[in-house]
Amino acid sequence: MERIDGRGCMDLRPVEIDRGCNRYAEGSALIRWGNTHVLCTASVEEKVPQFLRGTGQGWVSAEYAMLPRSTHQRTQREISRGRPNARGQEIQRLIGRSLRASVDLEALGERTVWIDCDVLQADGGTRTAAITASFVALVDACRWLLDRSVVKGFPVVHQVAAVSAGLVDGEVLLDLCYEEDSAAQVDCNVVMAEDGRFVELQATGEDALFPRQTFDRMLSAAEEGIRRLHRLQLEVLGVASFEELVGR
Amino acid sequence: MERIDGRGCMDLRPVEIDRGCNRYAEGSALIRWGNTHVLCTASVEEKVPQFLRGTGQGWVSAEYAMLPRSTHQRTQREISRGRPNARGQEIQRLIGRSLRASVDLEALGERTVWIDCDVLQADGGTRTAAITASFVALVDACRWLLDRSVVKGFPVVHQVAAVSAGLVDGEVLLDLCYEEDSAAQVDCNVVMAEDGRFVELQATGEDALFPRQTFDRMLSAAEEGIRRLHRLQLEVLGVASFEELVGR
Amino acid sequence: MERIDGRGCMDLRPVEIDRGCNRYAEGSALIRWGNTHVLCTASVEEKVPQFLRGTGQGWVSAEYAMLPRSTHQRTQREISRGRPNARGQEIQRLIGRSLRASVDLEALGERTVWIDCDVLQADGGTRTAAITASFVALVDACRWLLDRSVVKGFPVVHQVAAVSAGLVDGEVLLDLCYEEDSAAQVDCNVVMAEDGRFVELQATGEDALFPRQTFDRMLSAAEEGIRRLHRLQLEVLGVASFEELVGR
Amino acid sequence: MERIDGRGCMDLRPVEIDRGCNRYAEGSALIRWGNTHVLCTASVEEKVPQFLRGTGQGWVSAEYAMLPRSTHQRTQREISRGRPNARGQEIQRLIGRSLRASVDLEALGERTVWIDCDVLQADGGTRTAAITASFVALVDACRWLLDRSVVKGFPVVHQVAAVSAGLVDGEVLLDLCYEEDSAAQVDCNVVMAEDGRFVELQATGEDALFPRQTFDRMLSAAEEGIRRLHRLQLEVLGVASFEELVGR
Amino acid sequence: MERIDGRGCMDLRPVEIDRGCNRYAEGSALIRWGNTHVLCTASVEEKVPQFLRGTGQGWVSAEYAMLPRSTHQRTQREISRGRPNARGQEIQRLIGRSLRASVDLEALGERTVWIDCDVLQADGGTRTAAITASFVALVDACRWLLDRSVVKGFPVVHQVAAVSAGLVDGEVLLDLCYEEDSAAQVDCNVVMAEDGRFVELQATGEDALFPRQTFDRMLSAAEEGIRRLHRLQLEVLGVASFEELVGR
Amino acid sequence: MERIDGRGCMDLRPVEIDRGCNRYAEGSALIRWGNTHVLCTASVEEKVPQFLRGTGQGWVSAEYAMLPRSTHQRTQREISRGRPNARGQEIQRLIGRSLRASVDLEALGERTVWIDCDVLQADGGTRTAAITASFVALVDACRWLLDRSVVKGFPVVHQVAAVSAGLVDGEVLLDLCYEEDSAAQVDCNVVMAEDGRFVELQATGEDALFPRQTFDRMLSAAEEGIRRLHRLQLEVLGVASFEELVGR
Repeated sequence: MERIDGRGCMDLRPVEIDRGCNRYAEGSALIRWGNTHVLCTASVEEKVPQFLRGTGQGWVSAEYAMLPRSTHQRTQREISRGRPNARGQEIQRLIGRSLRASVDLEALGERTVWIDCDVLQADGGTRTAAITASFVALVDACRWLLDRSVVKGFPVVHQVAAVSAGLVDGEVLLDLCYEEDSAAQVDCNVVMAEDGRFVELQATGEDALFPRQTFDRMLSAAEEGIRRLHRLQLEVLGVASFEELVGR
Repeated sequence: MERIDGRGCMDLRPVEIDRGCNRYAEGSALIRWGNTHVLCTASVEEKVPQFLRGTGQGWVSAEYAMLPRSTHQRTQREISRGRPNARGQEIQRLIGRSLRASVDLEALGERTVWIDCDVLQADGGTRTAAITASFVALVDACRWLLDRSVVKGFPVVHQVAAVSAGLVDGEVLLDLCYEEDSAAQVDCNVVMAEDGRFVELQATGEDALFPRQTFDRMLSAAEEGIRRLHRLQLEVLGVASFEELVGR
Repeated sequence: MERIDGRGCMDLRPVEIDRGCNRYAEGSALIRWGNTHVLCTASVEEKVPQFLRGTGQGWVSAEYAMLPRSTHQRTQREISRGRPNARGQEIQRLIGRSLRASVDLEALGERTVWIDCDVLQADGGTRTAAITASFVALVDACRWLLDRSVVKGFPVVHQVAAVSAGLVDGEVLLDLCYEEDSAAQVDCNVVMAEDGRFVELQATGEDALFPRQTFDRMLSAAEEGIRRLHRLQLEVLGVASFEELVGR
Repeated sequence: MERIDGRGCMDLRPVEIDRGCNRYAEGSALIRWGNTHVLCTASVEEKVPQFLRGTGQGWVSAEYAMLPRSTHQRTQREISRGRPNARGQEIQRLIGRSLRASVDLEALGERTVWIDCDVLQADGGTRTAAITASFVALVDACRWLLDRSVVKGFPVVHQVAAVSAGLVDGEVLLDLCYEEDSAAQVDCNVVMAEDGRFVELQATGEDALFPRQTFDRMLSAAEEGIRRLHRLQLEVLGVASFEELVGR
Repeated sequence: MERIDGRGCMDLRPVEIDRGCNRYAEGSALIRWGNTHVLCTASVEEKVPQFLRGTGQGWVSAEYAMLPRSTHQRTQREISRGRPNARGQEIQRLIGRSLRASVDLEALGERTVWIDCDVLQADGGTRTAAITASFVALVDACRWLLDRSVVKGFPVVHQVAAVSAGLVDGEVLLDLCYEEDSAAQVDCNVVMAEDGRFVELQATGEDALFPRQTFDRMLSAAEEGIRRLHRLQLEVLGVASFEELVGR
Repeated sequence: MERIDGRGCMDLRPVEIDRGCNRYAEGSALIRWGNTHVLCTASVEEKVPQFLRGTGQGWVSAEYAMLPRSTHQRTQREISRGRPNARGQEIQRLIGRSLRASVDLEALGERTVWIDCDVLQADGGTRTAAITASFVALVDACRWLLDRSVVKGFPVVHQVAAVSAGLVDGEVLLDLCYEEDSAAQVDCNVVMAEDGRFVELQATGEDALFPRQTFDRMLSAAEEGIRRLHRLQLEVLGVASFEELVGR
């Protein structure tokens, strides 16, 4: 089966990460994953949410938004509608959980790293692109902290990346673009660490129920795709291996 | 291993559903699942969201909220904080997707069924309780429509119920209460239909990564638990089987 | 004259109060007053509003809301409309004033008791039901404070309950249900203490002006009704008299 | 007993109404009642709220707000606080009900008269000042409608005015200023029509319970005060009697 | 060319300033400039915005709003629309900048003077009226501070006033009323100090582009008009000269 | 005098415009002006604001926002603060007015062109960068309309661009970067059309008053700078002259 854009079922779209694209942020990465473009920054703030004050523990908090014309039809800004977008809220909670899993929050110390993910152009897979690029930005923010001796040890303990998979016309496809996503019976998003363990799995079948073996096949496809993204992240970060990255 | 409340690993807490608890709603169900109490109503409105006008297709929309003192510590109302609660938004989107999967939206016709889930008391598993009870309320609202010949055929096509499972101290447990949930390394929520196919799977390991086989064991536990909930739903609805429910 | 539901003019609908219905709240009461059902909780918070800080004086603050399907037609949630409901604001101010009158705020000490009144089902008289049941919840919260020696003396100094009366077709009726309320030319709400003195009187005649003697007759009816509610409250609280309640 | 400002117990503060103070509004009145100054406008809009569309019936809707420095201490604007002021909401509902009682809404026809009451300076009694002046503005807006033959008959059917009374140091006082109001054990607001019948009665005793005879004395004082305000309104409106005002 | 109201091109409308119109504010002024009426108060608050805490420096902050019926057609309140009015925000920023330029913020000390400008009736030129009258209110608030020895020296260092000019039918006109403003091809607002230097210049030509010489002519007209306003301000403030005002 | 970045007083920073950077928008341009980066899109919507319905006339509406980490310190999103940013509102009104001046709104027909300006990185001059790049995006959106024969004639009638100038240490500088802007005694923003006429002039001297001749010198500097920007716009748009652009 040939896909809309000529890819094979297990091909990722071309992915490029422009690291350090923002001159003010402690870490930043602009990811261009096919026609999906997301700008991610990591900002250090010397404060933690109320529930962590005095615990010595840090936090990673994510925000996600789409520019009005990142989509086929212009969408209204959240501030114009007067309320946060529910889908965006759900996505930013996922990004936050995923990146917190990559960091030792005690080693980070009582400070917050804010992850801002702004979608400049959307063509499916914005949440997985955001997670994958934000990890790069987060690493650079942690390096910035280490270089200035703000933290004693490097707080990053896992490498996380994410990809989607879906079932389209009975076929399991890796990395859906928008048009495929719209036609999918089932789709899933997988966040996985460097050791093959998972941070988060989500599968949803609004238009069709799915049996367990379909999910198993989507999951295997995603595992395979994330391994490739892990390699790309290391390359962009200028290291040969996860061990080199975390300095073991 | 004995659990906090003396249950075995694969035991559900006691579940009771008080069907028809609200005298105005077209369908309603108050679920008492251990110490988690959720009041669910299904309300018919002869209108659909903008994007469906003129399509002949209906919609199911869910809203979820917690009463201020449904929790150990009182929480502020959303209207007092001035913004919707992000966790609640995420949950109501899940409830909406799950229940839409149980209905033939064309058979429903151009109208909306509003599902309101209000948590009176929370002790873990509020979202799975909400889905399980809302299905009962939704069936009664659809019967109400059929009895009045507003719809020609019965719009319910699948039976959905949900349960959580988690990994606590290395042990897979079914149906976590709040205290177990707080201690869990991983937890997952599963929504499943009467034929064993899934509507939605979510697993999250904020405090610990989890290997694929752990997820597989949690999923098997959830499957087993949901089958029991399916039987309870049929009993509460006064039918002997799914086939009798949908009139096949 | 026989009323819609067969009652006599001076009859109350059947009232039941399920005390302690919430396992987390310091005090709680679910009142079922005819078809009006209101869940009231009293929550202790060790903080006071800004204007009382450092004064040694406490506060009682009430919030009132209706579940979306507590009414004949589903109503939108306040957070969905984006603004607080003005009628609800007016009612919660009344509940707050009424319950503050029952407490010695200095004996309460610098803390707040939050009264949350959530209407599960509405059939007229929700504000008077909320006041009557909240008093029970408030007493239990004060007992909780006394049992833990957080306060030195029992802070409750008055017993308050409330009822409505109205003029329907020229007849004074006690305790209007929704249908009667809609047909009333005048209606009034009365909050009265155990010694027959008033906390609050409100009478409104939007559809008809009313002479002073009509008001006098409604007031007498309400006095009579509240005395019965005072007896019910004592019974539910397990005491024989107001003096026993406050420990004199 | 001499009062703070030298008045006797049954004296009103000096009241002046500057009718027609706004050049755009269909009716307007600036009331200076002691140091309480309220600007009231009546604006005709050829639209009614949703629930009245197609009924041929009109509506009167009131809004009430205080300028930031109308009070001793500057108060924040509602838009800066991000939410409507609850006390203001309660007051504007009272003003709306009071003025609707003075109009035959069918004779008004399917249009709304908006009553805007903005407090320029507050020294107690702003709600009663607002009602008393808004009646003057409303009459002029109705005359404007009649002069242009928009309505066939004059829609005003009752004359309404309002005053406060209270119990201060055991003494019943008419028309409390801010300082007296702060010291009052009980206070009440009374809205009365030209024929001595009531539109609305409210009495509240947050700091002290009050027996029925206290209320009766406050009510008698208010009746006496409102009769004087009725005469002032007629004078300002340039008519000798209520009958002349409504053209009977 | 004769103008709508019979004025010559370089005539101001009649301007009156009622100083001290509010009994609570530290400074206040009601300006009646033709049919434009703006009530300005200056309120001292012993607090500064976050960014100035601990700097010893004070602040002047302005808020601007229009009463609903200050305009030909009633406009909705900001709180009813749920969001601040953008034009109002722009104007209050201009007023704030203009008045800060008149004060030595260090001499003011770590406190804020709030300037509230509420438009009672609008007929063009509300922002220039607000600036001109607010200066008077601000001076009185500073005198209040000096009289109580809260500040050591008089913090006012410049006298500011403002006027509009515009191009209507090819003619430069000073001080546009609403009708002229609506017909203007270009209009500008000028804020100028006592020494002829400018605080702010704004010219806008939405309906027509304008050459530099047009702007020069409008600016000259405005300079001339502001000089007259400076004289009026001094007169209202009871001093013969700027030097006397600032005590040099 | 040498400037921070080595420029001469009358030098612009390097400016690049990446036209067509967004694949969905009818027109788009990413401007990189020194370290200020703004992404501008022009989106056609077949609707106009209420006040234009039925007039046959179109509208151009602008929105401006900064990404949270476009600035040295991360700033909170507007939706997180719960209210629109006042400075942003002022800027988007300026952008809207400026671009409307470049279009014949009747030739545009009853539709809206939405201009979205999102600042990716800010180093001074974001509003002038936004205007200059939005003009390019707007032209492409108008060409898109013409190519599809949605409009009969090309609606663009003027070419607009903008630049800032300021007074720093007594020297007039063209095109201030952030550091210069912070140090400026006066700064001005100028929007000018291809024929040398102005659309908008703004000069503000919060930290220092400025005499007329200073303004004149800033204005001359800005005129000179804008002429260079006009040439750059034409080049980016692939035409040799303004006449060729508008097809005369």
